[in-house]
Amino acid sequence: MVATIPLTVALPLVAVPPSLADNTADLDRLKATLAAALPSELAGRPLRVPFACITTVAAAFRAAGFHGWAVVHCLPGQLELIDFLPEEPKLLPGLALDLGSTHLEASLIDLLTGKVLARNTALNQQVEYGADILTRIHCAAKEEGLRQLQQAAVDSINGLIAQFCQEAAVLPEEIRTLTAAGNTTMAHLLLGLSPYYLCREPYIPLVNAPDPFLATEIGLRLHPQAMTWLLPSRGSYFGGDLISGILAVGLDQAEQPAMLIDVGTNAEVVLGGKDWLIACAGAAGPALEGGVARMGMRAAPSAIEQVSIDRVSWRLTWRSIADAPPLGICGSGLIDLAAELYLARIIDLRGKFQAEFVGQSEAQRQFVQERLVQCGNETTFLLVEGVSVSQTDLDAMMRSKAAMYAILETLCAQVGIAFSELEQIHVAGAFGEHINPRQAITLGMLPDLPLTVFNPVGNTSLAGAEQLLLDHTLWERAQDICRKITYLELNVNQEFMIRFSGSRFIPHTDPSLFPSVPVFR
Amino acid sequence: MVATIPLTVALPLVAVPPSLADNTADLDRLKATLAAALPSELAGRPLRVPFACITTVAAAFRAAGFHGWAVVHCLPGQLELIDFLPEEPKLLPGLALDLGSTHLEASLIDLLTGKVLARNTALNQQVEYGADILTRIHCAAKEEGLRQLQQAAVDSINGLIAQFCQEAAVLPEEIRTLTAAGNTTMAHLLLGLSPYYLCREPYIPLVNAPDPFLATEIGLRLHPQAMTWLLPSRGSYFGGDLISGILAVGLDQAEQPAMLIDVGTNAEVVLGGKDWLIACAGAAGPALEGGVARMGMRAAPSAIEQVSIDRVSWRLTWRSIADAPPLGICGSGLIDLAAELYLARIIDLRGKFQAEFVGQSEAQRQFVQERLVQCGNETTFLLVEGVSVSQTDLDAMMRSKAAMYAILETLCAQVGIAFSELEQIHVAGAFGEHINPRQAITLGMLPDLPLTVFNPVGNTSLAGAEQLLLDHTLWERAQDICRKITYLELNVNQEFMIRFSGSRFIPHTDPSLFPSVPVFR
Repeated sequence: MVATIPLTVALPLVAVPPSLADNTADLDRLKATLAAALPSELAGRPLRVPFACITTVAAAFRAAGFHGWAVVHCLPGQLELIDFLPEEPKLLPGLALDLGSTHLEASLIDLLTGKVLARNTALNQQVEYGADILTRIHCAAKEEGLRQLQQAAVDSINGLIAQFCQEAAVLPEEIRTLTAAGNTTMAHLLLGLSPYYLCREPYIPLVNAPDPFLATEIGLRLHPQAMTWLLPSRGSYFGGDLISGILAVGLDQAEQPAMLIDVGTNAEVVLGGKDWLIACAGAAGPALEGGVARMGMRAAPSAIEQVSIDRVSWRLTWRSIADAPPLGICGSGLIDLAAELYLARIIDLRGKFQAEFVGQSEAQRQFVQERLVQCGNETTFLLVEGVSVSQTDLDAMMRSKAAMYAILETLCAQVGIAFSELEQIHVAGAFGEHINPRQAITLGMLPDLPLTVFNPVGNTSLAGAEQLLLDHTLWERAQDICRKITYLELNVNQEFMIRFSGSRFIPHTDPSLFPSVPVFR
Repeated sequence: MVATIPLTVALPLVAVPPSLADNTADLDRLKATLAAALPSELAGRPLRVPFACITTVAAAFRAAGFHGWAVVHCLPGQLELIDFLPEEPKLLPGLALDLGSTHLEASLIDLLTGKVLARNTALNQQVEYGADILTRIHCAAKEEGLRQLQQAAVDSINGLIAQFCQEAAVLPEEIRTLTAAGNTTMAHLLLGLSPYYLCREPYIPLVNAPDPFLATEIGLRLHPQAMTWLLPSRGSYFGGDLISGILAVGLDQAEQPAMLIDVGTNAEVVLGGKDWLIACAGAAGPALEGGVARMGMRAAPSAIEQVSIDRVSWRLTWRSIADAPPLGICGSGLIDLAAELYLARIIDLRGKFQAEFVGQSEAQRQFVQERLVQCGNETTFLLVEGVSVSQTDLDAMMRSKAAMYAILETLCAQVGIAFSELEQIHVAGAFGEHINPRQAITLGMLPDLPLTVFNPVGNTSLAGAEQLLLDHTLWERAQDICRKITYLELNVNQEFMIRFSGSRFIPHTDPSLFPSVPVFR
């Protein structure tokens, strides 16, 4: 059983049947009985029946003999009675959705028990209209473009719904509610709202916090009265996916300052606790997400995610995701590799392949000879047949790691907090799942803290949407987070640029910040 | 200017334009600015923007330079922002509707000033499917019947809307809100709800108090976000038209007990004041509304509405509505005639044509000889060429007048109030407009009170709907009236039957109740 009150609930009630002495109308009888039977947390809230439901609800109530289960949406400030069931429902499915620009990830959850009935990912069909956000914003400005992009998102979601329904043996009309989190552009496109001003100074969204609306209003195939709850955005560059993440890890309720890092196309970082929240976003992501490195790829099957170099035997070992034949390298693999290359002194503190090799043993010499090859003008490290990493790739990674550390430093400096004061650093997404914090510290990407501080938290955008399904009070909490959070603009931040320059070394210009990392001069 | 806050308002606001330092989303900016600019009566209410309006409202706000007039519905417990205007509106039209079973009567009202822009009546096209309520209830049970009846009502209303728009030079989309009052069956048919149980014991409506809904949901041609506010019913036999009437005359706020009488197919009577209300309905109407008398007709042009007999010259004079050639007699005409016949001793205290004439003068004898003719088996009084009143007609009228007086007596007796304690008796509708209370007292239909007590109030169903348009607080007041009112069932009331028998004489079995009326034994 779910201890909190979900967004949609089935409430049992037994009404006094009508008689000559009590001739209240069916629907008024139902509403009055329900109002008296509400759990204390919902008591006293205005209760309405949407026009489209009057006939079906009243007929079902009468057919059931004036007792049964009322299905109710817990909307902000009011309750909406949308269905009446003669028997206790066995399931009350709701859908939680992370609306990523490349992939959607969703779960079907039973609101009665909190149990996950199905979970899966799907391609966002919007990629047909452009891989990146900016292309899609431009596409939306064309005739029909916005409608097509909306339809692509809706089709993608409907595809997942159909899949889930088959998997969990439920009908689409049994799904009563949907929570969704996505970045600000994704939210606009899903709602069919023009994202035109999102990428134009002063970067103003059309809406940050839309009110809940009917899923059918955008063409989703769910119960006709299913509500869509879209997690609010803070602004153009800080979307509902992050707000959802803050909810998921409970950052807004933390007693001690903590941090949430989410690396996607951008690195988005939130610092704070129950009293304040500060956030920023910066372009630290591409190299880590597989967008820049020549051989880079998303953390998905066939991506090399882990690399180690034994510095005695000079053997290189690697592991690919799902142990599939390697086709490229993902962010965590690249970090692993770079840290190992640094410790093996194959790259220097600037992240450059050593011009002159400083190793001593024959095994080491042979290792380098075999692996370091010239490809055109550049030096390239051959990781495995068909997968190599060039100096250009390493340079991109160095910029990303420098940006990441500079973001974390700038954010903490802004509020006068030392890294050592952080109780937890939640690391979200595939990045958090696959990264080895020890290696990230070696590179000077993450601060030199005990490894227990780093907490991989998976897809927090989806997790927050799931939690919202099961606790309607999180809706107001999400709006509060939006109001409470301070957004720090890095583009115009001089401090950030200085810190960024200082971070473009391994581990840092000031190695005393990383006592655990060996320094080779 | 309207002093109260109408159901829909246009509120001026000036927002701070967006900038890099203030990058709130357009719609959130609009909502926040509006929330801060609300009149104190509306302050603090949750404010939502319906999904369908997001794009148009945000675009209009931006195009207007972030200042202008927000068009807002004052819904129960929340506000809904549905439009944004760059300039102060010159008109904000709303529609008030009395949905009668035979005729609709409506007014187009400017919510800014309270001015009536147009007012008219139209036939309820449902009459094609049956003249009376019961036929329509049966028709609604047939396949497609309910849909056809709903469509007929909607078509009738759309016809009036088109007419008003032409007359007042407004577009249907400029009409933002609609209030409607009708009896319980009419309300069900307009909403497309089955009236099946309305006429079957224990006479349970499907709904008494529907929440406001979009006018477009039933196919009305108004602004796409125009709301329909249907005045609540108390039960199967006490509809929103009466609740509207109570609002209109302010019966629920009266310091001293007062009464509202509305005669349609039934006579519906409400007694009470600010602390309590009691109501009942009975079949006192048909003879008075023109439904029973052979020559009877509705109070409309060509109906004889007034009759007098000069008892010196023995001249009969009459007046028809609109001075049109007489085609029949309406309720007030019949009452006038019966009272005059009684005073002329042409009918006796049982309402029967005198078997043996008791008059004395030659003129009187001649008058009777010319006017009283045998038609088949019955004595008939010739009023004017082509219009006569038979004993059967008089009998029906006598039953109606007896029922009316018995209803009034029973109601007062129920709460222990004497007629003399009533401050006012509001008489609604055509009946109130045309009736001569002096003559009704002579017949013993209305209590023998000073004539100033009787107050003709016109179409109170329409008047209440008009008042609701201009004062959104009346919605809650109407719901309160429904909760507060006690309905007295007459069908099973033994007292009523006794009183009815006592009232079947002119003026009454107990003439001491009517000191102003001469008694001829």
